[in-house]
Amino acid sequence: MASKGHPDNGDVETKEMDIRSLSSSRRVHNSGSLHKVGVPPKQNLFREFTATVKETLFADDPLRPFKDQPRSRKIILGIQTIFPIFEWGRDYNWKKFRGDLIAGLTIASLCIPQDIGYANLANLDPQYGLYSSFVPPLIYAFMGSSRDIAIGPVAVVSLLLGTMLSNEIDPKNKVEYRRLAFTATFFAGITQATLGFLRLGFLIDFLSHAAIVGFMGGAAITIALQQLKGLLGIKKFTKKTDIVSVMHSVWGSVHHGWNWQTILIGVSFLTFLLFAKYIGKKNKKFFWVPAIAPLISVVVSTFFVYITHAEKKGVAIVKHIDEGINPPSVRQIFFHGEYLLKGVRIGIVAGMIALTEAVAIGRTFAAMKDYQLDGNKEMVALGTMNVVGSMTSCYVATGSFSRSAVNYMAGCQTAASNIVMSCVVFLTLKFITPLFKYTPNAILAAIIISAVVGLLDFQAAILIWKIDKFDFVACLGAFLGVVFASVEIGLLIAVSISFAKILLQVTRPRTAVLGKLPRTTLYRNIQQYPEATKVPGVLVVRVDSAIYFSNSNYVKERILRWLMDEEERVKAACEPAIQFLIVEMSPVTDIDTSGIHALEELHRSLQKKNVQLILANPGPVVIDKLHASDFANLIGEDKIFLTVADAVSSCCLKPVEEEV
Amino acid sequence: MASKGHPDNGDVETKEMDIRSLSSSRRVHNSGSLHKVGVPPKQNLFREFTATVKETLFADDPLRPFKDQPRSRKIILGIQTIFPIFEWGRDYNWKKFRGDLIAGLTIASLCIPQDIGYANLANLDPQYGLYSSFVPPLIYAFMGSSRDIAIGPVAVVSLLLGTMLSNEIDPKNKVEYRRLAFTATFFAGITQATLGFLRLGFLIDFLSHAAIVGFMGGAAITIALQQLKGLLGIKKFTKKTDIVSVMHSVWGSVHHGWNWQTILIGVSFLTFLLFAKYIGKKNKKFFWVPAIAPLISVVVSTFFVYITHAEKKGVAIVKHIDEGINPPSVRQIFFHGEYLLKGVRIGIVAGMIALTEAVAIGRTFAAMKDYQLDGNKEMVALGTMNVVGSMTSCYVATGSFSRSAVNYMAGCQTAASNIVMSCVVFLTLKFITPLFKYTPNAILAAIIISAVVGLLDFQAAILIWKIDKFDFVACLGAFLGVVFASVEIGLLIAVSISFAKILLQVTRPRTAVLGKLPRTTLYRNIQQYPEATKVPGVLVVRVDSAIYFSNSNYVKERILRWLMDEEERVKAACEPAIQFLIVEMSPVTDIDTSGIHALEELHRSLQKKNVQLILANPGPVVIDKLHASDFANLIGEDKIFLTVADAVSSCCLKPVEEEV
Repeated sequence: MASKGHPDNGDVETKEMDIRSLSSSRRVHNSGSLHKVGVPPKQNLFREFTATVKETLFADDPLRPFKDQPRSRKIILGIQTIFPIFEWGRDYNWKKFRGDLIAGLTIASLCIPQDIGYANLANLDPQYGLYSSFVPPLIYAFMGSSRDIAIGPVAVVSLLLGTMLSNEIDPKNKVEYRRLAFTATFFAGITQATLGFLRLGFLIDFLSHAAIVGFMGGAAITIALQQLKGLLGIKKFTKKTDIVSVMHSVWGSVHHGWNWQTILIGVSFLTFLLFAKYIGKKNKKFFWVPAIAPLISVVVSTFFVYITHAEKKGVAIVKHIDEGINPPSVRQIFFHGEYLLKGVRIGIVAGMIALTEAVAIGRTFAAMKDYQLDGNKEMVALGTMNVVGSMTSCYVATGSFSRSAVNYMAGCQTAASNIVMSCVVFLTLKFITPLFKYTPNAILAAIIISAVVGLLDFQAAILIWKIDKFDFVACLGAFLGVVFASVEIGLLIAVSISFAKILLQVTRPRTAVLGKLPRTTLYRNIQQYPEATKVPGVLVVRVDSAIYFSNSNYVKERILRWLMDEEERVKAACEPAIQFLIVEMSPVTDIDTSGIHALEELHRSLQKKNVQLILANPGPVVIDKLHASDFANLIGEDKIFLTVADAVSSCCLKPVEEEV
Repeated sequence: MASKGHPDNGDVETKEMDIRSLSSSRRVHNSGSLHKVGVPPKQNLFREFTATVKETLFADDPLRPFKDQPRSRKIILGIQTIFPIFEWGRDYNWKKFRGDLIAGLTIASLCIPQDIGYANLANLDPQYGLYSSFVPPLIYAFMGSSRDIAIGPVAVVSLLLGTMLSNEIDPKNKVEYRRLAFTATFFAGITQATLGFLRLGFLIDFLSHAAIVGFMGGAAITIALQQLKGLLGIKKFTKKTDIVSVMHSVWGSVHHGWNWQTILIGVSFLTFLLFAKYIGKKNKKFFWVPAIAPLISVVVSTFFVYITHAEKKGVAIVKHIDEGINPPSVRQIFFHGEYLLKGVRIGIVAGMIALTEAVAIGRTFAAMKDYQLDGNKEMVALGTMNVVGSMTSCYVATGSFSRSAVNYMAGCQTAASNIVMSCVVFLTLKFITPLFKYTPNAILAAIIISAVVGLLDFQAAILIWKIDKFDFVACLGAFLGVVFASVEIGLLIAVSISFAKILLQVTRPRTAVLGKLPRTTLYRNIQQYPEATKVPGVLVVRVDSAIYFSNSNYVKERILRWLMDEEERVKAACEPAIQFLIVEMSPVTDIDTSGIHALEELHRSLQKKNVQLILANPGPVVIDKLHASDFANLIGEDKIFLTVADAVSSCCLKPVEEEV
């Protein structure tokens, strides 16, 4: 392979001259001295395979710290890897604890009223929301590596779970419904842990950012609409979640279904909550105002209802909430029977969505504080937490956007803030739940509405519109799907559009005609640089993607069409006919057998037209395959150049030689 | 936007100097005069959208000939587009007809015995094979645009149809089975025509070449094994198609199930057929030898059985074959009832496979004779042909690999050779079918075996192994799936592996560290060019793919990992610390909102490390989005360069300035 090797002796001097004299390249006579395309050293098949597997599944090199360590150290490192608390716990100090304590108390005050409301969204009794804020955060604090995430039930997952579960079992059949909820939670955890353990975490990346923005926005609207039931004191309410059914329910009950006392309480506290939110947004120093406002609302309104006995005037209240901590629920999980499969299906969907939310939060805050987060390890932690949760009467918990932000702003230092929160929830469950008896449902509705308002991210949607129209379609599709059909349909639309985009990307890669930038050796897209000029008799086309079976045929036909267009133009302008087609291969990172076939067919078609095919700058993998398939010999190894400029100058040499 | 525009005045001179002096770039003082990255002119949203749709669905610009034509001409062109026979028919002449006549007679002599055998593979009576070689080729001759394809039933589709149909209805229930076969054929046609009409033809590209090679090879083995029944005269034979069940059947009947007279006939004629094939392969002039050998075998063996009355000694014969041409079958198609959905499902699968085969053949011969083939139009033709076929007692027909090759070698000029073949089949059906009564089944088995041997493409498999190991896995997976499980499982494996490859491509794009080729201004992958050197204090990384939601996170983390590795190396070697990270964006053809987010996070992480992010040569779409998202302002517009060399020289300027 010496001939394909790279010359590192005298002729590089000539090379430099070439570049200098390219604008008058006809002077160059010695084309043999141009830089040759390097062929990378042959790799062992096994090593190549392991390298690919490693790059795909272990891109983050999780075993790096274990390298070259003694055995005892490895064991310690192993434990620390599974339970990061033993890592950060060693540097834990009083100052950090102060931060975590304040943050933990703040998020606890926020989570308790939210939990009760979210449990309602999932069609579960209020205490199940609190249960889910007790056990899972504890587990996460030991196993998770994010320092800022606040664990517990969240609005979107609760809604999703509520919708999917009630499609299978009527929520009035409380026992069976709850059993299915635990089953789904169990399998959500299994799904999460499995994805993490098999290092398939990248699968959640397939839900694009844009789709998530649309989905979350739609879910926020849906959840807010659902709260009209509580806020307006409507008794007969649709079970569907789409905007049409809900508005129908709302207007249908306007004359005899609304309760003005409820509306008064609900609307006034909603105003208070939104105002508190506004204050917190206006001045970051007052972040705690919106954080404790919900608890204040609950306390004040409960007291108010208790003294006025408003519940007798039609104001719906919580009525009953079980005292005591989580009862075990292992035996309630369906491990066989007809509901097993349904639980698995619901669990997989809910688990994936919960994962997406948690990982997005984790990444955001990790980037803000600049620490590394191992996505796959996070998934194992979240999965374990939900598996344990399903055995202790919790439903799917994950990271909450709003509470994590409060946690961050309140100055949390480590996952210990979750432990603090968990302790507060424990005390609440143990001692104060009976006090929630008179809490009006309207307050819970107001709290949920004010919480989900933050999920409506108009600015992100505008930015998406500005940057990428296709992304905006995905965003809008997911949004409208959730709002007008159901959460599941919205999710399906989001995933489908995301996949359609991937398919489009791999079937219709971009190609561009290149021109020479005036008085440089650079060839660039003539659409981007209108001043770039074409070289007479030469067409330079760049293919902007790996050439695979999914696009090889298109690429071939597209190049031929560029050539046809150019030939027509040249004919009309009476310019010299195209003699050389240079394909710039820099962006072609890989090629497969179908791609090689397409190149062969291209070569054959060009031969019929008397056009010479020339390749410029194929990458290491491509040049390797061009040689393996003998295509390099077919077109001639001297037709493969390091740069477009070299290739062009070789085309321009011929007339000179003829003149000589 | 003038500042981002391209300078076409004096300062290009400086630019040229830059390039010349790059190996000593510290001398360059005026970084402001470097070429700027061009921003393409803003496009109208609607025009951008239509351009995308056009490129995706109408990449081949089917309406191009209609442009600027008077109305009457447009109508004629329209008719010619739907029925290309009116286009090529006008130039038809005696010389072309002679070629078509000879080719048509040759493929007719080949197809008649094959059809009878293939009908058997599909568990249908022999005449249905002949029917399918009468109507569909006629329709195709009017509507199709390939000049070389030979239409009729083919082995793989017959086997697939036979397997899938008999999973639903026992073939012994002839009437119902046949009805389902026509239903499947109808919907296969609908599928094909719809794909073509909606211009979704690119969907069949998702079955990769490698997967097809494996699938076809596996199908060939399976079909050949099935023929052992006829060849050995076994009466009790498994209905499964996997190699284990079949070999079990064969060995289980070795003592009392085999019939030596059958074996004698079968093996001797198989030897004859394979020898004829060998002669044809050895010398292209004798291509007609293997083409007429099957008919000769049928005639000779039928005559032999007739005079020796071998059928009374246990040699299975065709026995009965209906006389007369295709009876109508519109009323037999299931348009409702439980079999409708099954028919649709089978039809879609069989239709797609048939399409894949026909399009591959069409493309191959079009490339060989250098004419254009509109894939979508072809699909409409094939679809119409199968829809009409399903109404005239035909089952799924498509282009046959072996007969098309014979057609080509016999010198066919147009699709008229299909008409000739169709006429011969018509005469056969009308007059000579009774003569097939004494044809031994062993001969049909021998003919099928010798036909499918050609589908085993070892050379292609070896080439695939050489070029792309992942492709080879797809090939092997499809092959083993078909051989050891079933045709459907093999197909499923092929499609899954193809999709997995696409997903891998979009989630794990390649990245490379670049180095400067000695005494040039070129930066290339240091793995490909080991002599390339890194610039002290600067790390150049190239991302080899569009940055989308599916890979944005990976790309960000991979770049950070390259930086970490480099920092470790630099530290160990006591070289100056990395101050600049240049991301070469040439291959990044597009970026979406997730990608922009990833860049922002990368920028933030680098700021924490005091490393400056610099971008080199973003393409038109990317630069547009960098501006739309304000990311260009975030890192500073002067941090975006036209080439890596420019970017590097800007990094090297600083120390000089400080020295000054």
